[in-house]
Formats: sequence, structure tokens, C-alpha cells
Amino acid sequence: MTLHDREWRGFASDNWAGVHPEVLAAVAEANGGHVPAYGRDPYTERLQEVVRGHFGEQAEAFPVFNGTGANVLALQAAAPAWGAVVCTGTAHIHNDENGAPERVGGLKLLPVPSPDGKLTPELVELQAWGFGDVHRAQPSVVSITQSTEVGTVYTPDEVRALAEQAHGLGMAVHLDGARIANAAARLGTGLREFTTDAGVDVVSLGGTKNGLLAAEAVVVLRPEAAPGMAYLRKMDMQLASKMRFASAQLLAMYEGDLWLRSALHANAMAARLGAAVAEVPGVRLTQPVQANGVFAVLPAGAADRVRESVPFYDWDRSSGEVRWMCSFDTTEPDVDRLVAAVREAVSGG
Amino acid sequence: MTLHDREWRGFASDNWAGVHPEVLAAVAEANGGHVPAYGRDPYTERLQEVVRGHFGEQAEAFPVFNGTGANVLALQAAAPAWGAVVCTGTAHIHNDENGAPERVGGLKLLPVPSPDGKLTPELVELQAWGFGDVHRAQPSVVSITQSTEVGTVYTPDEVRALAEQAHGLGMAVHLDGARIANAAARLGTGLREFTTDAGVDVVSLGGTKNGLLAAEAVVVLRPEAAPGMAYLRKMDMQLASKMRFASAQLLAMYEGDLWLRSALHANAMAARLGAAVAEVPGVRLTQPVQANGVFAVLPAGAADRVRESVPFYDWDRSSGEVRWMCSFDTTEPDVDRLVAAVREAVSGG
Amino acid sequence: MTLHDREWRGFASDNWAGVHPEVLAAVAEANGGHVPAYGRDPYTERLQEVVRGHFGEQAEAFPVFNGTGANVLALQAAAPAWGAVVCTGTAHIHNDENGAPERVGGLKLLPVPSPDGKLTPELVELQAWGFGDVHRAQPSVVSITQSTEVGTVYTPDEVRALAEQAHGLGMAVHLDGARIANAAARLGTGLREFTTDAGVDVVSLGGTKNGLLAAEAVVVLRPEAAPGMAYLRKMDMQLASKMRFASAQLLAMYEGDLWLRSALHANAMAARLGAAVAEVPGVRLTQPVQANGVFAVLPAGAADRVRESVPFYDWDRSSGEVRWMCSFDTTEPDVDRLVAAVREAVSGG
Amino acid sequence: MTLHDREWRGFASDNWAGVHPEVLAAVAEANGGHVPAYGRDPYTERLQEVVRGHFGEQAEAFPVFNGTGANVLALQAAAPAWGAVVCTGTAHIHNDENGAPERVGGLKLLPVPSPDGKLTPELVELQAWGFGDVHRAQPSVVSITQSTEVGTVYTPDEVRALAEQAHGLGMAVHLDGARIANAAARLGTGLREFTTDAGVDVVSLGGTKNGLLAAEAVVVLRPEAAPGMAYLRKMDMQLASKMRFASAQLLAMYEGDLWLRSALHANAMAARLGAAVAEVPGVRLTQPVQANGVFAVLPAGAADRVRESVPFYDWDRSSGEVRWMCSFDTTEPDVDRLVAAVREAVSGG
Repeated sequence: MTLHDREWRGFASDNWAGVHPEVLAAVAEANGGHVPAYGRDPYTERLQEVVRGHFGEQAEAFPVFNGTGANVLALQAAAPAWGAVVCTGTAHIHNDENGAPERVGGLKLLPVPSPDGKLTPELVELQAWGFGDVHRAQPSVVSITQSTEVGTVYTPDEVRALAEQAHGLGMAVHLDGARIANAAARLGTGLREFTTDAGVDVVSLGGTKNGLLAAEAVVVLRPEAAPGMAYLRKMDMQLASKMRFASAQLLAMYEGDLWLRSALHANAMAARLGAAVAEVPGVRLTQPVQANGVFAVLPAGAADRVRESVPFYDWDRSSGEVRWMCSFDTTEPDVDRLVAAVREAVSGG
Repeated sequence: MTLHDREWRGFASDNWAGVHPEVLAAVAEANGGHVPAYGRDPYTERLQEVVRGHFGEQAEAFPVFNGTGANVLALQAAAPAWGAVVCTGTAHIHNDENGAPERVGGLKLLPVPSPDGKLTPELVELQAWGFGDVHRAQPSVVSITQSTEVGTVYTPDEVRALAEQAHGLGMAVHLDGARIANAAARLGTGLREFTTDAGVDVVSLGGTKNGLLAAEAVVVLRPEAAPGMAYLRKMDMQLASKMRFASAQLLAMYEGDLWLRSALHANAMAARLGAAVAEVPGVRLTQPVQANGVFAVLPAGAADRVRESVPFYDWDRSSGEVRWMCSFDTTEPDVDRLVAAVREAVSGG
Repeated sequence: MTLHDREWRGFASDNWAGVHPEVLAAVAEANGGHVPAYGRDPYTERLQEVVRGHFGEQAEAFPVFNGTGANVLALQAAAPAWGAVVCTGTAHIHNDENGAPERVGGLKLLPVPSPDGKLTPELVELQAWGFGDVHRAQPSVVSITQSTEVGTVYTPDEVRALAEQAHGLGMAVHLDGARIANAAARLGTGLREFTTDAGVDVVSLGGTKNGLLAAEAVVVLRPEAAPGMAYLRKMDMQLASKMRFASAQLLAMYEGDLWLRSALHANAMAARLGAAVAEVPGVRLTQPVQANGVFAVLPAGAADRVRESVPFYDWDRSSGEVRWMCSFDTTEPDVDRLVAAVREAVSGG
Repeated sequence: MTLHDREWRGFASDNWAGVHPEVLAAVAEANGGHVPAYGRDPYTERLQEVVRGHFGEQAEAFPVFNGTGANVLALQAAAPAWGAVVCTGTAHIHNDENGAPERVGGLKLLPVPSPDGKLTPELVELQAWGFGDVHRAQPSVVSITQSTEVGTVYTPDEVRALAEQAHGLGMAVHLDGARIANAAARLGTGLREFTTDAGVDVVSLGGTKNGLLAAEAVVVLRPEAAPGMAYLRKMDMQLASKMRFASAQLLAMYEGDLWLRSALHANAMAARLGAAVAEVPGVRLTQPVQANGVFAVLPAGAADRVRESVPFYDWDRSSGEVRWMCSFDTTEPDVDRLVAAVREAVSGG
């Protein structure tokens, strides 16, 4: 029974969108009969092949329920009990997980301010020190988000520079890829060029934000960098009993090109939106539009007027900055309606 | 793409079964368009009504991903930071969650041996002492499983006796209802008679084992007994972004009578199986068959021979006790084939 | 048997100093015979009276082993399981406790940069938001250090402004008083004026840095702000079995005026040092000298030359800032020798 | 100022006793001047030599504040994040630390009932299984207490059998030596014969119960079995700033023979007590008296009558079992007075 308007869409979050039809079809195909629980099923086995195809022969995937779970597991596996994680001040792991990395993972976060949501070796240096000092949580992992929380994208070279620095310091590199497909779509590369090939050790492989029902995976690229994943996943409550369905979702996305098709589309919608609103007098983009998010400052009061017809979130209420997210199902008319609403709100302000 | 035999079924676990078709249909109905994420959607709202219908006007449901998550959240909410949980030595929370209650929930478990998987006031007394002694983790919650891990079922009066004792000691009562429907089916009652009406404070409401894809819920029956659930769910990594789909699954099961139909069927299959194997010379049932599990001791070697054709788990390798679980999709021919295999293995042994 | 030079002293830390003789005498007085363990002894009882004399009738003291323990216990008691603590980026709890607040206390820290080691309502505002948003660790405590890690001192009015803001937001106020005596000595007040009277809820009452062997205490000023302290102290491994000796140390310090005498002396030595080095060309004080620490930038290379004869720590290696700490046993000749060494190192550089 | 009766002693706990005068003298000798904090001082250095003398060339000591701290640190270092600890149901770590091993150490305990407080390979087998099963907290450490919580003592051979079993299973062996000296005094051996030489990997080296003020140490016997101790000690809030005084206490005890003298005396007092009360009609010893504790069942009501003149604890209120602990300062007249009181209470009952 449907309780909502299936034609209504906004720009609040790629999490407000539903499931891509190909994904639901794959779930149905995986249904029926019995298969072993907890990952010893043919769908999870096939997923390993697919993941190795993307990330190289050493890669191993651990499906989990959500992005918080993927990030905490990946970081906990990559850090010792006394470890710390260097990240940006805008990192999802720092701002949006109610302390799950600290409380469940037992991690200390060392955030550094970043204007564009990206770490650089210079920023990492601000926190990557004190090795061997027992008073200081030991910097153990550099965690980056790709594409970032503010819609920007690291180049493979930027990731490589961070990985070289990190490995030189004995630290591991984690990539929060909740929107990894949007980054690859932007870069025009596969997933491997800016992960395995650039020195990343462990990836949170996104799914839900790009059209899955509820599935992500930790992908370990260098096994010795993240030991104990199977035990950690269970004790951190991220082990699905009927894992065939999580794996089937991930297969639907990553076995073919659904991941890329959906990301290219979402990115294109964001580009269309960004280009259009940048033309509106009084509107200023605050970040380059490189993935599926558009960040802009609107004149005072305008955002709330736009929101009367289309939902989206403030990013920084104090500065009037808003965030518009596009998803796999955003349409050109959706974008054009938002642009029109912005134009009207700004001029009518 | 289907990678398994949709006609193959065993008795290993109700988790080896897939998703009831009505559930997948409900997920598809909830798809399309955008709805607010993280539970502010009409499906989760409707779920609250349905849950209140089952459990009373104070009930509130918090959908989560899996049973481990439901149990840890419920217990963590019901206990202070210095709390302990009295449970049986066979409790799932003690044996099968890799220490999640301790490691994620910060709980101390106080297990007591129980011959039939059930707590009694006498058993609880073995651990419910030391109140006010700072050296002792403070007994704060009595946790029972209904139906139990060994396929037995508490009567409402048995639950009530435990709740009266617990409340008299200032403790809360948690019911792990991973197989709650099987208990109700056995008792011929609704869900309320042995929970809300018997004094239970918080329930882990099962779903996956009875035919959902991946959804359970913590149902708080007495709000003051489990504060902070919304925050705990997020920080414990059990908050689904696209929660409409978790709620749609739970609605498919609990809005109508699917929960009961499936449980009645699974119980009936277990009853058929139990009655038949009890007739096989050399086979001894170790527990009364009251829900969807059958526990039996087979002659030495017989279990492994049966397992050549049908999968199931040992329960206690040292004593030769095995566990056969029936699920919503177990068929009479499935049962009869297992019985035949047992008979042959025993006689041919 | 003495293994060190009892006449050798430096400026590395007030923790390098030993125990005030009056404290050792008090420990010896408390020795002999049997008294109940774990705090039910007459010394701990007397300590409660003394603490009430300082902090008011509601105050209750919980002796612990060290400052890390005091801080984590105080914060854990004052915050819910989903709480966060606003502090400065220079806070000891953020920089020097290897993640103990996160890992043992399950807390999230929200540090803000502060030029002088002090929080202000404006700085607190940067992090005290998002109340009710389950994704955000809930800001629950404002934690200040008095005197601060950089040797500055809050006025009672500054504390009061923070407390009013915090309480208005439903947050508690914690004061890390590892050097609380130095602050009172500076302010010319008792301990109460800038704690109880200014709205502070819970204090880490220092001892070791001011001449105790190993004893601090959490002092709860408003009981409802920090429930469960007795249980938390035990489970966090800070409950001394022979507590009479911890209490005897604290009595030696706080029953009379030893706390004040020692702090006045250490402050005076720091003032003498600060005044003298400020006169040295090329040396620049980076913070006003308000307690027992002096912070200064020296010309390149000078610090290491000084360190050849007297030990002290760099504060910020990148800027050349050093920290000199004075303690209860620092002498005027000690100070003058350091000043001479600085003068020589700078001129000879 | 003395607030208690220095001539009053009971049998409640070895923690009710004070500090041996030689220990206080050693603390005073270590006082004065400055030494580096946090363990880089000559007393802690000398302690390493002394500990190597007792336990062998690989041994390293980490002084901590109390026994809870020592046990949790040792176990946390010896187990992975997903580890479990097999211990007896009477183990201090299970009963008397308010869940510190679970809550701070993130450990799962797997207790087994033991009639005499000792583990055996047969008892360990009850819990040491499920290796590789992600659902089960992985048995990683066997923890024994020597002398046990019920006053019994393992022989070196008994320890060796446990260590061989444990190592064969890939598990480590921890020895809670809160009363290790009493065991050695009983066995007539050094500390090494039933630790290093018997295969123990890490020891909680007792101090406080045998006459120190507040100091214990984790002694790592096989470095690879307990990595990260220095970081864990700090983050678990057990790092003393003025560590010279903890080390001085431990030196006072272990550099000479104070540990042994005190333990021999306490054991002798217990033996005297045990022998005498065993003669009292109606009194039954429940454990052999092998260390400094006597466990006995008294006729109903007798214990409370004895307690009117001398304090001690019930061990098992339901069975009437009591515990009498002797300490380094228990005198023969103390014992004789207790025996007389028991005799009178029993006869006068």
C-alpha cells in the first residue's frame, strides 16, 4: 500500500529518494528457497568477484547496513585501540554520526578545518604528530570523503599525495565513499584509479545514496591494514542474517554500470542546477559543482521562501548557505522548477 | 539474476529462508518519489499506529536493521551505564552476538543456567542481588526470549511473575522477540497478552526470522523505562536512512495477519516434525515442541548422515543434540523428507 | 633508598616535583590499624566536611587517583550516553588523555580554537547547537580549565557568563581544576566564588600538581547534575581500596591553607620568571602570566641551548613557543638561574 | 592528624590494613627534588631490574593504581577487540569490578563454575570453543587468580597444564596476582616458578593487599602477548604522573623480601585461625587454608554475633559462609580473640 506521492521529489538528500527499479528486481531474483545465512551464499560470493574486478585482486567486500556502520567498522579495523583518525571538520564521521566512531569504535577524531571539504598533506600535518607519546591518541588513519560532504572531488593525484604521506607516517588511508560513484563519474575513471591505485587501504563503498534500499560495504584493499573485519562486523551489529539480499543490491549496482549511470545522471542534474542558479543575481555558489551537490548562499529570507515549495536543507544557517542534493531520479523539470523558485524568491525578496 | 536453487530448503535456520512475497510487494509499493529520510515518513508513522494497536497506546516502535541491534539498543536504553542484565545461559544475547551487548552497549551480562531456556523468579534471584554495592554491576534488566532459543514458550503468567519480581527490585523487563510471533501462535493470544499486559517494558520485535528482508524494531512499552532510544539508535549505527522500507516491511507483517499466518505455519511444521521423529526409535526430543524449533538427540553418527541430504545445525555437539528450525516456507514434503532421512540414518547406523 | 638528586629541579612540569612534606606526614598519621576500605573511613568522612566548607552544603567529594580519572568521571556523570562536551582546542581532555574521554567515557568532544585557553559564550556557540538532532552528539557539558593549560585564569564573571549560557541550553558546566588553587591564588578568592557561586556543576579538584602524591577528587556541586558517581568511579577503575590515604592527602591540602600557600608560591615564582624573561631582548611572552606557567617564544635555537642546563617542554615546536612551569618547591635561585640561562642563550645565539 | 584507632584491627579484608612502615619510608626516600614524570624516573627504571630478577629477562612492569586497573589493562592488551576471557564464576574480574573488564576493556567474560576457585583444563574446555565463529566472542585469554578468591593456591603444575592448553588453542594466560605473594609463600617458591616458568603470559602483580599504599603493576612476561600496554595504561586512566612513588612502593616490597615476609606472616595467621576454628563444634571450613583467607560455615546467627566485636564479611549469605582475611599486620592475639568470639557465639547460640 502506497502512502506517499510517488511523483513528489525534492533536493533535501539523496536519501530521500527510493530504490532504483533494477535493484528491487535483483532482490526479487535472489528471493525464494534457502541459502546459508550470514554471507555464505552465492550472492555474497559473486559480490567478491565483482569487487575484485573494480578494486583489484586483494580486495574483499564486507556488506553492511549503512554508511555509519561502514565507516566505523573500517576505521576501527584500521586503527589500534589507542588510535586516532585525522579528518576534516566537515567530515560526516565527525558531524553526522552522533559520536558512533568514538562510542562504538573507541576512536579519537582529530578534525582539521578545510575550506573545500578536502584534506591536504599540509592539513594532515596539523594533527599527524606525537607518534610514540602515550598522552596523545596515536594518529593512525587519514580519512577522506570522496566525493566530499560539500560536493567536491579529489583527483587521483591528490589522494596519492595523502596516501604517500600517511604511509610514510605509518598511518592507513580510509576513503568514505558514500558517494564514490559520483566522484568516479566526475573524474571519468573507474573506482580503482583513486583508491587502490592511489594507495587507499580501505573504502566505505556507498550504495544507499545512489539508489539501493539499504546496503553499503567495507571494501578492504590491503588486508593487513584492516584485520578482524569479520568479527568486528558482527560485534558492531552490522552483520545481516539474510545477507544474500544486501549482496544482491550491491551486485545490481556494481556488477553492471548502474552505479555509473545513476551517478552521471545525478551529477548532470547538479551541474544543470549549479549553472542555472549561478546566473541568478544575488545567488553565489560556495563550492565548485563537481558531484551531485550544489552549495550556494542566497539573500536573506530567500531560502525559506523557496522551501515553501521544495524541500532542502540549510548547510550553514549563520551564513545563509544552503545545500541542494540531486539523486538518481532527479529530473530536468525538477531542476528547472527549483531554479524558477529560486529566481522568484530572490527577486521577490 | 538468480544464483541459487529456489526450490531447495533445509532446517538450518529461519534465517536461511528468504522474504515472504507480500513483504517484497510492500517494499515496491513504498518505492518511488521522495519521502523524508530517517523515519519522518508516512510508513514509519503508520507503523506507530499499528504497533499501538498491538501493544497499547504507550507503545513506540524504533525500526532497526537486525536482532542484535534491537537487543543491544533495548538493553542499553533500559539500563544505566553501570547496569547488568540477568539472562539465561542459552540467551542469544550471551552466546550469539560476539559480545555486542558488552562492547557496544557497555552492559554486563549475568547469565544463569536454565534447563528449558526460560528464566524463573528463582533463577533470577541467583543474580539479582548486591543492589547499592558499587563493586557489583547493578542488576537492572531481566531479559527473556520468547519463544526461547530452545523452542519453548513462556505463558503470560510466567512472564508476569518475572515482571512483578523485576519491578519490585527496581529492574526492567526486556523481551527478545526475534520469534515473538511463534510464541503468540502457540499461545493463541495476541502480542499484548504476554508483553504489555504482563509487565514487559521493552520488546525486540522480530521480523527477519519470520519472513522480512532485514527489519526488526525495538518497541518501548513504558517510555520512562527506555529513555534516549532515538539517540542511541543513531549512535549504535542502527538508523536506516531510507527507513520507509524498513517500516514497509514491518507493516506488511504486522498490519494484517501475515505475522500470525507465517508463525502458525512454521509452528505446525515443527509440530509435524517433532511428532514424527519422536516415533523414530533412538531419537529423543530434548525440549517440548512449542514453537518452530525441534531439539533432539540422535544416535551417534546419525546427524552427520542426515546432513548429507539436508542442512541443519548441531545444538550441543558433546551430547549429540541437534536443532531443526522450520520457517514460513517449510513444506510438509520438506518435513517428511527430513523424517525419512532421520529414520534411515538411525536404522542404517 | 634515594636514587635521584633531591636538590635538582627544573621547569618541565609541576608533576616533576615531589610531595609536600606536610602531605607525607598526614599519610603517616592516617596509617596503622584497620579502617573500612573503599571510602567508609573517617578520613574520607572528614574530607566531605572540608569540601562542603569550600564549596557549599551540597558538595560531595569523590577521591580518585589522577586528573584523567577525575575529568572522565565528571564528564561521564554529567552527560548522557549520547552527550558531547564543548571545550577548547588546547584542553587537556582533548590533547593529553589519549582519548580517555572518548574511549572510557564514551563521550564526543567538540573542541573550539581559543587564543588564550579560555572559552567564551561566543566560542561555545560555535558548537552548542543541533539540540534534538539525533545525528549530532548532543552538546551536554561545557568544560573549562581553571587555571587554563596556557596559564590564564577565568574571572568569576567569565565563568558565570558561561554557566548562564550553558544552563539556558540545558547543559552542565565542568571545571577541570587540576590547577584550581593557582587560579584562586591569582583571583584572591576562595574556591567557591568561581565554582559554586558562578554556576559550575562539577569540579575536578586538583591535588597532585600542587604537591600531593597521587590524589584528586571529583567534587559534585549540584547532585542532580552528576548522578551515579559512586558506580562510575568503580567501573572506571578509580576507586582506591585504601582510600583513607587519598583522603588524608586531600585533607592535608584543603583542610588548612596548604593549597593556597603552595599556589601563591608557585604563582609568585612564575610572575618573577615572566617579568624577568620579558625583559630579555628577543623573548616574547605569548600569554599573560596569571598562574604558575610562563609561555614565551624564544629566538630560533635558544630553547634547546637553555635546555642543556634546565629541562622544560616545547609548547608549540612550529612557532618556537616554550612552557615553563613553576611548582610549590621552585625557588627564587631556580628562577634566576633559568633567566640567566635564557639571557645567555639568546645573546649567544 | 589521626582520626582512627591505630590499634583496632579486624578480619574484613587485607584492604582494611594500612601501609607497611618500610613502604612509607621508601616513599619518603623517593621524595624531594624533581624527576621526570610518567615513568621516566630512576625508581621506575630500577623497578624494571627488580621485576626482571623475579620474572626473567623478558619481563616488563607497568605500575598502575589498583587491581582493577591491572586486570583490565592486562586482559585488554592480551585480547583482540573481539576477544573473550575464560575465568571462574568466583573471579574478582567477574564479580567485583562493576563490569570494568566489559565496559572499559571491551571484553566478554565467559565464567565457569568452580568449586575451589581454580580453573582446570576440563573447566576451560566448557568455554574455549567456537574459534573462527564470528557470532561467538573469541576465547582469547584464560585468567586465573593466584592465590584464588577463596584462599586456595594453584601448584606450578596446575598452572602449566592450563598454559599448555591455552597456548595450544592460541589463547594467552593471565594471572591475577593481587595476592601472588601469599601463593608463593604457600608454595615455598619464588614468583617465577608458577608464572614465567609455567607459561603465564601476563601478571597483575599485587601490592596494595600486601601492605602498599596504592600500587600494583601489570608485568608482561611475553611481550608479544600484550602489545600496546603503554598506550592502554594512559587511555585507561592508570598512568601516574608522579610514578616514582608508585615504583618506590613496589621496590620497597619486591626489591628485598618484604613481599615474602608479609605474606608468610599473613598466611601463618590464617593457618592459626583455620586450625583453631576447625576445632569449634558446628564450624566447618569450606576451603583448605592455603593462603591468607579462611572460609567457613557457621551455625545460623553465629556470624552476626561474632561481628558485634570484630568485622568480617559474609561470603555466601544463603549458605552462611563467611570469609576471614588476615593481613601483614594481623597479630596472634587478634586471631585468638576472633577464635574466642567464634567459640562463644557458637556455644551461646
